[in-house]
Amino acid sequence: MDRIVDLIRRKRNSEELALEELERLINGYIRAEISDAQMAAFLMAGTCNGFNDAEAAALTAAMLRCGQRVDLSAVPKAKVDYHSTGGVGDKISLIAAPVAAACGLAVPVIAERGIGHTGGTLDKLQSIPGFRTQLALADFEDLVTEFGLAFTAQSNELAPADKRLYALREATATVGSQALIAASAMSKKLAEGLDGLVLDVKVGKGSLLSGRTEARRLAQLMIGIGRRMDVKVQALLTDMDQPLGFTIGNALEIMEASQTLQGQGPPDLTGLAVEAAARMIFMGNPLISIDSAREQANTALEDGSALEVLRNVIAAQGGNANVLQQFESLPNASGEHVITSPRDGYISRINADDIGRAAVLLGAGRTDAEDKIDPAVGIVLQAKVGDNVVAGSGLCALYYTDETNLAEAVQLVEDAFRLSANVPEPRDLVLDLIQ
Amino acid sequence: MDRIVDLIRRKRNSEELALEELERLINGYIRAEISDAQMAAFLMAGTCNGFNDAEAAALTAAMLRCGQRVDLSAVPKAKVDYHSTGGVGDKISLIAAPVAAACGLAVPVIAERGIGHTGGTLDKLQSIPGFRTQLALADFEDLVTEFGLAFTAQSNELAPADKRLYALREATATVGSQALIAASAMSKKLAEGLDGLVLDVKVGKGSLLSGRTEARRLAQLMIGIGRRMDVKVQALLTDMDQPLGFTIGNALEIMEASQTLQGQGPPDLTGLAVEAAARMIFMGNPLISIDSAREQANTALEDGSALEVLRNVIAAQGGNANVLQQFESLPNASGEHVITSPRDGYISRINADDIGRAAVLLGAGRTDAEDKIDPAVGIVLQAKVGDNVVAGSGLCALYYTDETNLAEAVQLVEDAFRLSANVPEPRDLVLDLIQ
Repeated sequence: MDRIVDLIRRKRNSEELALEELERLINGYIRAEISDAQMAAFLMAGTCNGFNDAEAAALTAAMLRCGQRVDLSAVPKAKVDYHSTGGVGDKISLIAAPVAAACGLAVPVIAERGIGHTGGTLDKLQSIPGFRTQLALADFEDLVTEFGLAFTAQSNELAPADKRLYALREATATVGSQALIAASAMSKKLAEGLDGLVLDVKVGKGSLLSGRTEARRLAQLMIGIGRRMDVKVQALLTDMDQPLGFTIGNALEIMEASQTLQGQGPPDLTGLAVEAAARMIFMGNPLISIDSAREQANTALEDGSALEVLRNVIAAQGGNANVLQQFESLPNASGEHVITSPRDGYISRINADDIGRAAVLLGAGRTDAEDKIDPAVGIVLQAKVGDNVVAGSGLCALYYTDETNLAEAVQLVEDAFRLSANVPEPRDLVLDLIQ
Repeated sequence: MDRIVDLIRRKRNSEELALEELERLINGYIRAEISDAQMAAFLMAGTCNGFNDAEAAALTAAMLRCGQRVDLSAVPKAKVDYHSTGGVGDKISLIAAPVAAACGLAVPVIAERGIGHTGGTLDKLQSIPGFRTQLALADFEDLVTEFGLAFTAQSNELAPADKRLYALREATATVGSQALIAASAMSKKLAEGLDGLVLDVKVGKGSLLSGRTEARRLAQLMIGIGRRMDVKVQALLTDMDQPLGFTIGNALEIMEASQTLQGQGPPDLTGLAVEAAARMIFMGNPLISIDSAREQANTALEDGSALEVLRNVIAAQGGNANVLQQFESLPNASGEHVITSPRDGYISRINADDIGRAAVLLGAGRTDAEDKIDPAVGIVLQAKVGDNVVAGSGLCALYYTDETNLAEAVQLVEDAFRLSANVPEPRDLVLDLIQ
């Protein structure tokens, strides 16, 4: 049997490793028989030389087997979740999940922390005073059974391998590997005990993946992993060149998600959340049509039933559910800095990457795993791509509590906006459906 | 300024790092500000994507600056050392260094532990009862001043960065990178405060480098690093397809080195040791000819002066110098297993890699950094390539104290020998001189 260093060497030499070998690596790491240094070297060798699809699936399976799986076998509903590869202002999960639950699905969400310029659902929920995200597995299952929805964090029970590996990958510049991205997301989502999963693979400046080919490849990789594990997976390829909706920042995004659940959200956010929810509903009810699923999703927004689900879940998880109506109960920033348009024109671009990085500078996200987040701060756009602005009219506002990085953030945001004399070509938000 | 993870990312993306960036990495690691995991990821990224010559030189300089340098400025002799990239049965340093010292050079040897199938000078010396290899820097300098020769191990003073990095590289399969091999060896040798260095770059089955192109490239890389640091470096490219001399194993190699210093060594070992010593002498005395340097080296073997230097140094370092004549004072193995020839013929090959690995199985070398070495065990060849053997005559003997891996070792050794009906083409031992 090869020693661990031989397995690392073989991956360094671009050889394929077998399932049982990848399992030895993952299990050995979780049992602390393999050092951080050896795992880091292995991950870097794989990042440089690549893992093939079978290896990505084997890594997923090995990571999945390290932890427990949510058991909702007693719940007579289809278990379907949504996963976004991460974007700027991306609060889709906070809208689509309650909508899908309101339409009869069970949605057990193991939510993620944000890293870099993309936010995390877990961080957004944690801006709600009192909200508990560390649930025991049994409590999590009970909540999903009762409300059709609950949110929890990774733990020593749920997806422990991914939790430890992700922290290591962040520190060692091995976050970018497609196979590791896929294995990380899929091992976590498959631990939810799902029947189906809708992926939202973001393409563009504000996502991990800047090119469509790369995004399509990741979608296919994750769909393939799902197929090997008997979980139906579909992927929406969606545009992430400008931020989603108007808000970027944790409490700010809770507000906008709530507005959207009350039928008053911005068109791009509402449209994509409804599409994501409809794909989930359709996946759970293959006998209805996708149009009928879209109708159900729209109704759940209009009649307030989705909002009611979210309200109940927040309350059940210890949070102050009044924040969904009384935004002043959420953390509030002390300072505001408005950026105005230097001249008349049409907004032709709002670089989501720059906006995301500016939000991180204000304290809305992390650069390092240990960074503390300020839930109150962030950015509110006052116009979006295609809008006509005049000199001096507001483009966006920065909300801050600490001025240290404000000037740098303002510079980034100013540079993020591009104006043109002509109306820009409208862009599709949903670029493709891959299944 | 880039964060450490950004430096790792840039190397992952095959970018060149600047001297000060590589220095931050090395210094940060030595000061424990950079984790083993981050350094392992960096080393693997560099192993997969390569370091260029400037980076290899920068790594060497950074590693050199972490520690102290031997100061022999008061010694009115040329300071020259010899470094082998490592082979099987390679005890050249134990012969060439005393010869060069006997011919008037100062030879301050920071000796290495062995790893894998190639042995280390430090391990060989440690088979001498009482011999101390952990010398304080001042004591080491005193001994070199007095005898023209001393041996010490790496320490927290001498080449500490290479010591820590080498252990990490062993564990993470990043030993094979040419730039890291060069930086490791050169930072250690340059810490000796040398005027000149003779390299012995081994090519063939029993070396780290199986191809001549690769070996030539490593030689040129190390010569270039020397040039940037104002130290004259020359390289012999030598054959390492069959083991050097007849013995493989620590105490066994001390015996053979001693026999060679008494003019009774095997021709290949004697020839290469004299050539290495002559290159050192010539480098220290550029006014004489290489032929005259060879003559000096031969004389130092014949008149016993080189043996006398080694005897004095062993005694001064606490060792029992009588082992050089009374081999029974060295550790002795309890078991012997003789391998005989299955038929008549000429030996056409003795695969040095297999012989080296068999010796490791017997306990003569390490697979892992923590493995204990048994100084007594090893292999003694009874015939070499080109020799005529008859069925039943001895090919070699295995000396062991623990039978656990004996059968596996015997198999490897049997497979290492190839017989042919015809006399094989003679091979040159010295393939090239690069300067």
